[in-house]
Amino acid sequence: MPDEAARKKMALDYAQRINAGDIEGVLDLFADDIVFEDPVGRPPMVGKEDLRRHLELAVSCGTHEVPGPPMTSMDDRFVVTPTVVTVRKPRPMTFRIVGIVELDENGLGHRVQAFWGVTDVTMDTAVGTAVDTARDEPEAAGTAPGTDPAHPEGNRA
Amino acid sequence: MPDEAARKKMALDYAQRINAGDIEGVLDLFADDIVFEDPVGRPPMVGKEDLRRHLELAVSCGTHEVPGPPMTSMDDRFVVTPTVVTVRKPRPMTFRIVGIVELDENGLGHRVQAFWGVTDVTMDTAVGTAVDTARDEPEAAGTAPGTDPAHPEGNRA
Repeated sequence: MPDEAARKKMALDYAQRINAGDIEGVLDLFADDIVFEDPVGRPPMVGKEDLRRHLELAVSCGTHEVPGPPMTSMDDRFVVTPTVVTVRKPRPMTFRIVGIVELDENGLGHRVQAFWGVTDVTMDTAVGTAVDTARDEPEAAGTAPGTDPAHPEGNRA
Repeated sequence: MPDEAARKKMALDYAQRINAGDIEGVLDLFADDIVFEDPVGRPPMVGKEDLRRHLELAVSCGTHEVPGPPMTSMDDRFVVTPTVVTVRKPRPMTFRIVGIVELDENGLGHRVQAFWGVTDVTMDTAVGTAVDTARDEPEAAGTAPGTDPAHPEGNRA
């Protein structure tokens, strides 16, 4: 089983590869039977082809992830990472997300759950200028017109 | 079902009541069938009497929780909170924890999972002076003598 350091490295590699647009590199972090639930509460993506489409969309939207310190668990299975995710398209938005990855005995992710809700999304006023209004106006993000707050990229492929 | 604002309030109320030593107030946030897994990977506490003993120990150890912004999910069930927890006894320690609470239709917590590992614990050099060495020395916390890193309070009742 992957130790705590290996699990934390996996989470940081994930963000680094997403930010680099390295889709194949991201896919290498996961098992073939990956179940990727993003966000929790929507039907998960299952398998690498599903995940590849999701990643291609994410990269095409200019997704950038800034992970906080990953945490683990006492059962050799999980890595848990609070992350601030920004996208440029279809409009600038910021998402606060906690990602939980369950790894298999080979250190590959086989289940991902991304926890975030409508009130964890912020519409940004300009590219590169994230204005976090979510804490003061919890409903603002979810009711902004012309966007799909159900997905970081704005639209599920 | 509790909306996102209600779920986030529950998480913040939990920290506030723990910090105030208000054990009955904390218990009021949970259903009678609460399953409280802290840390994930150890046998959970089940039911309010089990949880009460855990909370009494936590308060007696000077537990103080500083929650980050809570996040939610799209299925009306979860609130997820990265938290920095400090204790004064048996010696000063700092824990980085992500707590996931699943709430029932009445807004009461009925399952808690606290994700943290040995490398998420820091031994503090003096009371009130938390020195975070965990990121540079991942094994330091877990190998320090005379402590039980399996539990924020140092010893499970």
